Amino acid sequence: MSFKNFKVVPKMIFGRGSFAQLDEVLAEERKRDDDFVVFLVDDVHQGKPLEGRVPLKAQDQLIWVNVDEEPTTKQVDSLTEQVQAHAGKTPVSVVGLGGGSTMDLAKAVSLMLTNPGGSAMYQGWDLIKNPAVHHIGIPTLSGTGAEASRTAVLCGPERKLGLNSDYTVFDQIIMDPELIKDVPTDQWFYTGMDCYIHCIESLEGTYLNEFSKAYGEKSLDLCREVYIDDHPEKDDKLMMASFMGGMSIAYSQVGACHALSYGLSYVLGYHHGIGNCIAFDVLEEFYPEGVKEFRQMMDKHNITLPKGICKDLPDETIAKMVKVAKSLGPLWHNVYGDGWEDKVTDELLTGLYRRI
Amino acid sequence: MSFKNFKVVPKMIFGRGSFAQLDEVLAEERKRDDDFVVFLVDDVHQGKPLEGRVPLKAQDQLIWVNVDEEPTTKQVDSLTEQVQAHAGKTPVSVVGLGGGSTMDLAKAVSLMLTNPGGSAMYQGWDLIKNPAVHHIGIPTLSGTGAEASRTAVLCGPERKLGLNSDYTVFDQIIMDPELIKDVPTDQWFYTGMDCYIHCIESLEGTYLNEFSKAYGEKSLDLCREVYIDDHPEKDDKLMMASFMGGMSIAYSQVGACHALSYGLSYVLGYHHGIGNCIAFDVLEEFYPEGVKEFRQMMDKHNITLPKGICKDLPDETIAKMVKVAKSLGPLWHNVYGDGWEDKVTDELLTGLYRRI
Repeated sequence: MSFKNFKVVPKMIFGRGSFAQLDEVLAEERKRDDDFVVFLVDDVHQGKPLEGRVPLKAQDQLIWVNVDEEPTTKQVDSLTEQVQAHAGKTPVSVVGLGGGSTMDLAKAVSLMLTNPGGSAMYQGWDLIKNPAVHHIGIPTLSGTGAEASRTAVLCGPERKLGLNSDYTVFDQIIMDPELIKDVPTDQWFYTGMDCYIHCIESLEGTYLNEFSKAYGEKSLDLCREVYIDDHPEKDDKLMMASFMGGMSIAYSQVGACHALSYGLSYVLGYHHGIGNCIAFDVLEEFYPEGVKEFRQMMDKHNITLPKGICKDLPDETIAKMVKVAKSLGPLWHNVYGDGWEDKVTDELLTGLYRRI
Repeated sequence: MSFKNFKVVPKMIFGRGSFAQLDEVLAEERKRDDDFVVFLVDDVHQGKPLEGRVPLKAQDQLIWVNVDEEPTTKQVDSLTEQVQAHAGKTPVSVVGLGGGSTMDLAKAVSLMLTNPGGSAMYQGWDLIKNPAVHHIGIPTLSGTGAEASRTAVLCGPERKLGLNSDYTVFDQIIMDPELIKDVPTDQWFYTGMDCYIHCIESLEGTYLNEFSKAYGEKSLDLCREVYIDDHPEKDDKLMMASFMGGMSIAYSQVGACHALSYGLSYVLGYHHGIGNCIAFDVLEEFYPEGVKEFRQMMDKHNITLPKGICKDLPDETIAKMVKVAKSLGPLWHNVYGDGWEDKVTDELLTGLYRRI
């Protein structure tokens, strides 16, 4: 097919306080008394009010997940084993409650419960064979677009790459803007900028069509209302920006910033959000307007990025990052169109990384 | 539940020329050699190039539908019988190829093939018991948002009211902007204004939340690029405006214009698009900015609306329309909020109709 047949989340709830409806949503999946649900919850919520609001039944499994590091295939495989060991049967739903990393873990576990072998086998495009267990995404941090996307990005033994498939897409999302109101400023900024940056990359890219454009433009407008205008409804707006940013990738692609950022994550362990910000800040030649506005937003929120990270790194470390960044063909194709291979040289990438 | 759990079209294709992918999409539904597909096609395409592009197999059924009048429950029941008589089995997919009326007929037939009794039994909210036959919507006219909505609006023996249910939503839509390029100007305008008007009603309404707002605002922006800026990509933009307008209704409602327009359709037989335009033109007190911009758009495209339609009608005809308009509680609740019953008087509605 020449145009993607785009699978989207088929059911969604949006609204302040809508998290309270999770119990009712799960009731539709629980058919037998011993049917159980797995909750994968970002451990930043441990001991916080949200913990007491998780609609946990006696037979359910709650697993706190730590996402200080980017999610890995190893972590997914170990979580999957933990779920398999819980009751000797398959859960009726897997709920991911947290940011993009937690939601991606929930997507990946729901897939690995029905697909044999380790998750690293499925890093790539459309390698998943069987439908996943029913899975629900509930963001408590907005910007990645993981709630809308058909990927679960994992660091594997070979590379950082997603489990991209129609089965990856959540069956249900609940977008409750109240859940993101207490995110620490740095994280709120870095994660929101993931959205801002992938919209810029998408809108400036060669893959763009009107579907992706309409979503990308609106998402950017909402980002501006959040990060420049400081709008009173900024939590609602950021949650919609993130969702629409995720939708805008449907027919487009990310670009130069995500390529560099993947190298930073894979080799130096930088989290996706801050990795993007650090990389974007050296890309004024690629995205002049976007980088200018991004710096205004940084100023407004007193964000200071780490500097000189790569300046004194050994050549072989830089070479590793260059290799990761260069391997992401579709991203560079989106930047340069056909013939990108001649333009994306080791010199170009090394120069960019050395400025980081 | 306090917030709607909103069911959306789970798979979509957008792109110029993407209609050519329909055959491949249907191949996934055809499991046995004698599996058949029903194509409900707006008869304006009869003898036109599109007719030759319908991927019809020997066992399939193509039915030309006439939508000069608004679709009725009787028409749906008769089409359903025609499909049931075709091969003594249920089709594997029902494809609606046309504007909102044709798409609504396809939705309704796909529902009635699996739900016993006549379609008038199911006019209302969530009365449908069984999932529909797989159904695909392909707009050849944009604006109604029928490609995105959970309703199929029908004129029944008692009233004009939709089959509103999660099962009504298409399983697949194909949005190919090339299919709308030859729509006659009047129809292109009236149907596009359906989108413009329901976005205005939604954005000015009391039901609005940020989900509906983001979609409604972007849809309006796109309408402006189409009807004011005469943008070179206007077909792509109108198709997205229509889809996003449909999405914006998720958590909101239409308003005063649709209420009046339903009365005009039901009693005088006006088609939905032109009915909305005629009604909107007397609603400057409800939507001052919107009506002003709407008139600019009319001027730009040399659209002249029929005038004085209701001036000399018998009182009992006006009373019938007033009754229909008044019965649409949720629409007036969206306009006025609580206490709308005191504001929506027969005098108010009669006065508005007499000006039409």
